[in-house]
Amino acid sequence: MSDIEQTTIKLTRGVPATEAFPIEEIIACSATVLRDHGKTLLQYQPAIGFLPLREIIASQAGVTPEQVVLSNGSIQLAAFLAEVLLPPGEAAFVEEPSYDRTITTLRRAGVKVVGIPLEDDGIDITFLEEAVKEHHPRLLYLIPDFQNPTGVTTSLAKREAIVSLVKEHDFMVVEDLPYRRLRYQGSDLPTLRELDAKRVIQLSSFSKLLSPGIRVGWMVAPVSIAKQVMQIATDTYITPNMLGQGLAYEFIHEGRLEANIEQLHALYAPRLAAMLNALSQCLPQASWTKPEGGFFVGLTLPAGVNSARVAEKAKEEKLALSNSAGFFANGDGSRFIRLPFCALREEEIEEAIKRLARVVQAINQQ
Amino acid sequence: MSDIEQTTIKLTRGVPATEAFPIEEIIACSATVLRDHGKTLLQYQPAIGFLPLREIIASQAGVTPEQVVLSNGSIQLAAFLAEVLLPPGEAAFVEEPSYDRTITTLRRAGVKVVGIPLEDDGIDITFLEEAVKEHHPRLLYLIPDFQNPTGVTTSLAKREAIVSLVKEHDFMVVEDLPYRRLRYQGSDLPTLRELDAKRVIQLSSFSKLLSPGIRVGWMVAPVSIAKQVMQIATDTYITPNMLGQGLAYEFIHEGRLEANIEQLHALYAPRLAAMLNALSQCLPQASWTKPEGGFFVGLTLPAGVNSARVAEKAKEEKLALSNSAGFFANGDGSRFIRLPFCALREEEIEEAIKRLARVVQAINQQ
Repeated sequence: MSDIEQTTIKLTRGVPATEAFPIEEIIACSATVLRDHGKTLLQYQPAIGFLPLREIIASQAGVTPEQVVLSNGSIQLAAFLAEVLLPPGEAAFVEEPSYDRTITTLRRAGVKVVGIPLEDDGIDITFLEEAVKEHHPRLLYLIPDFQNPTGVTTSLAKREAIVSLVKEHDFMVVEDLPYRRLRYQGSDLPTLRELDAKRVIQLSSFSKLLSPGIRVGWMVAPVSIAKQVMQIATDTYITPNMLGQGLAYEFIHEGRLEANIEQLHALYAPRLAAMLNALSQCLPQASWTKPEGGFFVGLTLPAGVNSARVAEKAKEEKLALSNSAGFFANGDGSRFIRLPFCALREEEIEEAIKRLARVVQAINQQ
Repeated sequence: MSDIEQTTIKLTRGVPATEAFPIEEIIACSATVLRDHGKTLLQYQPAIGFLPLREIIASQAGVTPEQVVLSNGSIQLAAFLAEVLLPPGEAAFVEEPSYDRTITTLRRAGVKVVGIPLEDDGIDITFLEEAVKEHHPRLLYLIPDFQNPTGVTTSLAKREAIVSLVKEHDFMVVEDLPYRRLRYQGSDLPTLRELDAKRVIQLSSFSKLLSPGIRVGWMVAPVSIAKQVMQIATDTYITPNMLGQGLAYEFIHEGRLEANIEQLHALYAPRLAAMLNALSQCLPQASWTKPEGGFFVGLTLPAGVNSARVAEKAKEEKLALSNSAGFFANGDGSRFIRLPFCALREEEIEEAIKRLARVVQAINQQ
């Protein structure tokens, strides 16, 4: 009996592969940036963040540095945006399912969160049109590339339809792009901001491309919104975490980030393939998304098989699964399971899906 | 004419001396801690923070690590505490004057902020007793050692009176201790937490002892409060800035923090002496506090001289002064000026107070 069969496998959080952290490069970059910019990085600084990193992000996005705000991870920026854009009681739309922490963040701000059903190519546009008329949203939050928790990428046609609707009804979009650079095949689609720079705010971070522990998230927004977010950031923590920002800057400045992303592609693409293959082999009676990148495959269980029941019973098979309900703002998510694949080796993925299939079969036969 | 006479001198923010940052030691400690704990520090981690650092702080405070929460600077912890302890509309007391960012943080949380007049040995206890009966506060926020913005240290008698009153009326105290270790003469008094561990929450940080840019603040609290704060921290940013926490841990672990504090004493004590001496020489008609440590001397202008007017006119003398009004929750602060001395050299301090004296004299004679 191999070790793997004795061990609990965690198909839970969407974390990067720990073995992929380039520790020696990070040590070297930390030393360099502290020697070059230590007096800045170690002192109190304006809440908008380290200028050299903002300049790089601005240049890549084709905006000015004053449109770029850095923070301690992008979810903190989502909280600031909720405070700026969403008076309590106003409505925000999210994909259904969506990233559970964003739903929590919006609800903490007193926002009415409405889920728009997500299809294989993005949200249901007809549903969105009706919901806009009913709820008059201030904001639509989307993860258009390799969505969390489903892996879905919004099609170009739907991106255009969304932007057109947003323009017509004059509300804002937040597009969250943490997985966009993790495309293992196929071609990038335009971002929503590329389609409408005025009404689309971009969030992203270095958590999936370099390290989450360094806590560096960023926002690209119209200047007036960037300024309001910066004021709230000042009132919240004075100065963001400058060491992480300095490190991210140096890592990009030395050309290491692109190489690191290539290494992540090489590590993660076979894991995605292993996941899709294992699902085909073991769970032909279920359906699932076929992402071309990112961290997640979204599984829909066969009719009559409840995901909470599966998660409970999976513990007996030494398999840990996420709570699906958290991803659903309104619906119950009773047949959905998020399958993260980046932090598991191929043999662990195969074993995990075997265990999951045994659980599903056992429940199906009852 | 020397250079100094051409330059604007900033008597504004309470920042540490940039020349005091131990950059090479920080580089060495970062490398060591990343080699030893990189896989932890670079990954998502529980919001409560890096265990080895929590263990050190817990051991020094005589508590368990689950009572210690780390965050991205202590003001963020104050915001979390407001959310846990202060439903909107409830009253919190602060010293009058107090740290302007705490007043802002409490007000953002919808709290009614009441200032208790600060005397040379701590808040006015008679006033406090009356205010407790009138406002039934949930919380009293104090900086008992070398207070910001006045430099005042609360006497032992007043510490005991406060703790006794807090116990009688069953509310909580937050004592913020960022300057406590920066005592240049005299002896430490007991902390309020040492007098009542059940009702006193401690906040502090490494911003004044090592670096603000690393953003490492900490809280010692009863377990139930620590758990609530941790949940809010999780919802706000998932994981705090781990690099800064790892660095602070390694810096202490290698015994460097105590040596660094000694160096800060050697750097800052003459600056405090220069400030007090310059005030005696140039502004005998004013009064000021005589702190034995910390970052600030609190100046009270002669009757009839308004601090906003002084700040405005000081610009003509190339002297930048803080806005005093922000430190006063209720009063107008019209004769108060905060004088930070740590980030200025002695000759800059002498020159700054000469300029200030010229401004005061000019206004006095009008």
